[in-house]
Amino acid sequence: MNLRKSLEAEQGLFIAEGEKVIRRAVGTGFPVRSFLMAHRWLEPLSDVLDTLDAPVYVADDATVEGVAGFQVHRGALASLERLPLPTVEDLVTRAHRILVLEDLVDHANVGALFRCAAALGIEAVVLSPRCADPLYRRSIKVSMGAVFAIPYARMPNWHEGLGTLRASGFRLLALTPDQAAVPLDKAPMGERVALMLGSEGDGLSSRWLNEADEAVCIPMSATAMSNGVDSLNVVAAGAIACHALLRP
Amino acid sequence: MNLRKSLEAEQGLFIAEGEKVIRRAVGTGFPVRSFLMAHRWLEPLSDVLDTLDAPVYVADDATVEGVAGFQVHRGALASLERLPLPTVEDLVTRAHRILVLEDLVDHANVGALFRCAAALGIEAVVLSPRCADPLYRRSIKVSMGAVFAIPYARMPNWHEGLGTLRASGFRLLALTPDQAAVPLDKAPMGERVALMLGSEGDGLSSRWLNEADEAVCIPMSATAMSNGVDSLNVVAAGAIACHALLRP
Ligand SMILES: C[S@@+](CC[C@H](N)C(=O)[O-])C[C@H]1O[C@@H](n2cnc3c(N)ncnc32)[C@H](O)[C@@H]1O
Ligand SMILES: C[S@@+](CC[C@H](N)C(=O)[O-])C[C@H]1O[C@@H](n2cnc3c(N)ncnc32)[C@H](O)[C@@H]1O
Repeated sequence: MNLRKSLEAEQGLFIAEGEKVIRRAVGTGFPVRSFLMAHRWLEPLSDVLDTLDAPVYVADDATVEGVAGFQVHRGALASLERLPLPTVEDLVTRAHRILVLEDLVDHANVGALFRCAAALGIEAVVLSPRCADPLYRRSIKVSMGAVFAIPYARMPNWHEGLGTLRASGFRLLALTPDQAAVPLDKAPMGERVALMLGSEGDGLSSRWLNEADEAVCIPMSATAMSNGVDSLNVVAAGAIACHALLRP
Repeated sequence: MNLRKSLEAEQGLFIAEGEKVIRRAVGTGFPVRSFLMAHRWLEPLSDVLDTLDAPVYVADDATVEGVAGFQVHRGALASLERLPLPTVEDLVTRAHRILVLEDLVDHANVGALFRCAAALGIEAVVLSPRCADPLYRRSIKVSMGAVFAIPYARMPNWHEGLGTLRASGFRLLALTPDQAAVPLDKAPMGERVALMLGSEGDGLSSRWLNEADEAVCIPMSATAMSNGVDSLNVVAAGAIACHALLRP
């Protein structure tokens, strides 16, 4: 599984699973390397298959699963080529509202944040070098395909990563559960805002917290601590923050 | 796995995994049936083990996993007895802010919503009959133990479920992605508010939508639809709504 993951990334491929995802991936312009599907999918996907000259391998469900090496829920797979990602600088040229994710290694969290971004008017996502791959199967699925709609880039370098954003005129808001930080609704926003979110275990690194323009918290109830809860999950926090930024 | 799940529920047992969760479960007052752990846990858990007379079975990690039938991340398990749940009526007597979940079958979503509830001042959770079990292993884990802190009840009957809440004086707000509904920040709140959330696939049933006092939406960006996203995930929506209700 780890092997497959790194092979995919190295060879510049990713897998789309199910009719809907395949359609979106193809529609987004990713070149198809090949298809693998049960016979019953030839007909519903014929419009897609006919316009491409990628080979279509037909097999029964068990074989599809065997080749894939995972449980295929919808009997149809496509292997697609990744497109080169933009640089962070190019990505954010025209954006006003972006998310910046530090070391979120969980594919479901990354996918869920892309879905929030797409729903709540975030225009781009910047990933630290260690963030999970948005084109990994689980990320795509949890994002409801939003990873195809929201452009993103990966910082080449964690250390210098925030410099580019600051140079592009973004106000860097570091989201932290620390209740001594500025409450979200009091944080000065401005024309270009970057919301920085940290990982489940460690939160944002102290380097990034220090480099931010402002540490910002979502107020939690007075009873949270006695409930044994000292933070929100990163998707919940991201959703609340994106909602607060949404310009009507 | 389904067998184990229903056996657990039928026999009134649930499993706590890992030192932290075991401590919280015991601290919450659930009677322990037995412990099963690797030798290295005897010492750190000795204060807990010494005060209870439940049997402690010691085994190597492989055996612990074999008996458990799943991957045990922290080498220590406890089997605990459930306590009878309160009735919905009793549960909400003193609450002002509650969540009502309709048919959320996903354990991770249920757990994540308990965590939001605990962090954001929600005092109780009401589950429709078909909702996933908050004491299932995965729910406990994702909730960060909040399922032990936030009291909850299960409606005996889906059909009549909302009647009890209305009779207790709750204003029933049905959260829906339908952007024609009243926007969240315009919704009249009042002394006692119940936030109703629906499942990933179907959303709230039309019966519950009709019975609500108000259908309420979280505004999404104008580009959400063209991004192929027509709703937030239920945890993101719940987080935004709980945050909006939080009384300073
Ligand atoms: C689970 S939290 C990290 C907890 C970590 N122990 C810490 O202290 O940062 C994951 C991320 O969600 C965001 N987050 C969680 N709760 C928050 C809150 N109440 N206010 C603002 N951001 C929050 C932060 O970006 C955080 O890095
Ligand atoms: C994934 S959505 C359900 C989508 C479903 N197709 C529908 O139309 O309701 C799951 C739940 O999250 C809540 N939800 C999602 N997006 C929302 C929004 N923009 N405003 C309010 N609630 C929302 C609702 O309670 C919904 O039942």
